[in-house]
Amino acid sequence: MTAIEIFVKMILDRWNGSIKNCDALLNSLSDETLQREIAPNKNRGIYLLGHLIAVHDDMLILLDLGEKLYPQLYEPFLKSPDKTVTEIPSVTELRIFWNNQCEVLKQKFDDLKPEEWLTKHTAVSAEDFAKEPNRNKLNIILTRTTHLAYHTGQLVLLK
Amino acid sequence: MTAIEIFVKMILDRWNGSIKNCDALLNSLSDETLQREIAPNKNRGIYLLGHLIAVHDDMLILLDLGEKLYPQLYEPFLKSPDKTVTEIPSVTELRIFWNNQCEVLKQKFDDLKPEEWLTKHTAVSAEDFAKEPNRNKLNIILTRTTHLAYHTGQLVLLK
Repeated sequence: MTAIEIFVKMILDRWNGSIKNCDALLNSLSDETLQREIAPNKNRGIYLLGHLIAVHDDMLILLDLGEKLYPQLYEPFLKSPDKTVTEIPSVTELRIFWNNQCEVLKQKFDDLKPEEWLTKHTAVSAEDFAKEPNRNKLNIILTRTTHLAYHTGQLVLLK
Repeated sequence: MTAIEIFVKMILDRWNGSIKNCDALLNSLSDETLQREIAPNKNRGIYLLGHLIAVHDDMLILLDLGEKLYPQLYEPFLKSPDKTVTEIPSVTELRIFWNNQCEVLKQKFDDLKPEEWLTKHTAVSAEDFAKEPNRNKLNIILTRTTHLAYHTGQLVLLK
């Protein structure tokens, strides 16, 4: 294994492990439980689930891997706070989106070659990237992994 | 920058950024607030603070960087659940430990050379490491960064 292969594996393992943890947690929570707030007057489980899907969808754009799967989630789960949009998908629908998205992302991530992970993501200019080569595609996985862990720590309170 | 230098910077930046976020959050919460539970019947803020210090202390051992700074925190904040040990340090004391530990770890991490980060941590055997070179010192930073994000997502509920 080259150093690059080792690092890519480390970071993708961490992402996959965090997805697996969150997925197992979601499967252990009923639809009714996900309708509850994680703490009094805080976000509901359903909002966090939709929020994670919306954020992960945006990774497809940042990584130049195609179009969003569920662009309709941007407005209610990223742009708006919880309990301000009345028409949102059901937990059942969001679970289907989540499962499908996890599969699609895994496939696309597995297809990327180690050296491709070191190329720039779409939100950084070529100029800035020349100065800051750490703003590469793999860094998107890294930041979204901590984002996922942050909200998993909240969802677990519904148990 | 070599590929190794880029990866080490990416992962250490993420750790330092996560520490900074958590530190700013802790500074925004009063001692009284940290005595509260993050949600009904869940861990208290003070327990999570002690838990983070205990886990970060163990990184010194795993990274072969010296002795723990606060070994007395293992029993009440790692081995035992919250509210089962009556004699624990005050929030004021824990804040002092946290600040000092953040400085000590930063200094020690900054002193490690990029290639040293790729060497094995102390909890993996030389044999296993030969087969799994991803179980290196930098991987400890990676896993502890998601651990930190997980609990920061809980502490933020005290706001």
